[in-house]
Amino acid sequence: MNLSRYLAQRRRLIEQALKHALHQADRPPRTLARAMRYSLFAGGKRIRPILALASGEVVGAPVERVLPFACAIEMIHTYSLIHDDLPAMDNDDLRRGKPTNHIVFGEGMAILAGDGLLTEAFRVMAEGGLRNGLDRTAALRAMREVATGAGASGMVGGQVADLEAERRKPTKTLVEYIHTRKTAALIRAAVRVGALLGEARPAQFTRLDRYGMALGLAFQVADDILDVEGATEKTGKRPGRDQELQKATYPAAVGMAKAKQRARELLDEALEALKPFGTPAEPLRQIAILVVERAVRS
Amino acid sequence: MNLSRYLAQRRRLIEQALKHALHQADRPPRTLARAMRYSLFAGGKRIRPILALASGEVVGAPVERVLPFACAIEMIHTYSLIHDDLPAMDNDDLRRGKPTNHIVFGEGMAILAGDGLLTEAFRVMAEGGLRNGLDRTAALRAMREVATGAGASGMVGGQVADLEAERRKPTKTLVEYIHTRKTAALIRAAVRVGALLGEARPAQFTRLDRYGMALGLAFQVADDILDVEGATEKTGKRPGRDQELQKATYPAAVGMAKAKQRARELLDEALEALKPFGTPAEPLRQIAILVVERAVRS
Repeated sequence: MNLSRYLAQRRRLIEQALKHALHQADRPPRTLARAMRYSLFAGGKRIRPILALASGEVVGAPVERVLPFACAIEMIHTYSLIHDDLPAMDNDDLRRGKPTNHIVFGEGMAILAGDGLLTEAFRVMAEGGLRNGLDRTAALRAMREVATGAGASGMVGGQVADLEAERRKPTKTLVEYIHTRKTAALIRAAVRVGALLGEARPAQFTRLDRYGMALGLAFQVADDILDVEGATEKTGKRPGRDQELQKATYPAAVGMAKAKQRARELLDEALEALKPFGTPAEPLRQIAILVVERAVRS
Repeated sequence: MNLSRYLAQRRRLIEQALKHALHQADRPPRTLARAMRYSLFAGGKRIRPILALASGEVVGAPVERVLPFACAIEMIHTYSLIHDDLPAMDNDDLRRGKPTNHIVFGEGMAILAGDGLLTEAFRVMAEGGLRNGLDRTAALRAMREVATGAGASGMVGGQVADLEAERRKPTKTLVEYIHTRKTAALIRAAVRVGALLGEARPAQFTRLDRYGMALGLAFQVADDILDVEGATEKTGKRPGRDQELQKATYPAAVGMAKAKQRARELLDEALEALKPFGTPAEPLRQIAILVVERAVRS
């Protein structure tokens, strides 16, 4: 398979569905709609929704069934970036090479744009679940997965731990605690949602879940590495930002060499979990390789 | 019926269910859990969840079925207060007579406590929907109602309009636009959720919905009146705060006498909508009277 063609095609599908999803909302105030769209269409790679679709593919879930949930996950990811960038959090003024939401729209509006995206994400899933052809128990389970991955014991909890860890000496345990929640939980949820909506058998579900967990963690380790070694053109962020904020990162905790080794181990784990699935799992495999190699080779 | 006994009994039920709902979350970071609990158990009157239960009662919905949704609505209401009080929004330091969340826990944590409550609310509804005995289509519909009422065209949209209206001359149209979204949308959603979960017939649903809409608007008009005329002991807020922030309020737009008259009209509308329901609607009736009389008599 041609990965870049696959990713481009999926991205188009998701962009379209996201536009449609926002239009469904019954006339929000214009500034709010603009602020939400600004960050939602700021050039994200759509990796989380693509993972949900690709995981569904492995167990034969029709794309249309997974799409609303995939969109919702991207909306939640976007809200989390808007809130993370706020002055009271990481105080970032640049994201994906563009001024952050609060720089353009002001702090109050940025908070509300995030709140709006998070809430609309659940509306989009409920609408998706009510459309014909979807088993409603599976829809509720998928919504529970997303809420758990994004919630107080997942992404929001990770962000809290991240905030509290600043200016503290990072240990490997602390960093894994943060990463598992802050980044891995939502990525894992994306993979689980695809599996659930494809009505995966328990053994299949367990393997896909292992893949999601390993990839989610690898994703953040790779991000930490790129923050040190990557250039702005590649990451869309100012390099060295983590160090500036004294963030608990993998390289800071265990050194660069061991961080890269850990990323490779996690990649192996992810690929191992996919072994029995053959060709339908090729997108998941290649995405994992892409995520890790990009950082490890840098 | 004895309204204060009824309200106290319902409040106890809801407090208990809210505690249980937060405990279900799988070990969030301790500070986050504390920040969420601080505002969730800060002495709220629980009027929204009580309305969901009372509306369900009218059409025979069992309390246990509505309870998770009622809790979720209260969690969403609480998150909205935390975010509204932030320095970038209304910059309030006092709420229900206690220091606001960000005063106690800091701005970053307050934003995250709000995000956590909003996300967990949807987890609680999904869990509720998956429990035996509940029709899953009704559960998804109820979740859609809540997301719509709380989302970009509902509560969040109202908050945006409210923010944008500050320091502008308020007109009656502008104030009703804001109030319909900022306050009425979630109250209306609470009433609709009860009706949906009780599988109300269309004609019943329409009447309950009319009640919810009228009460929701009356609620905010009453709040505006009390901000001018009420004392801190009664409202838990500093009086005159709306004027200080040059908020678009009913009394500011049409004067105090007309604001009180509008509140009375809305009460009549709400009571009229309940006419055919007889005794089972008594709690809804008395709550509406309580909300309006408290302000109009002041």
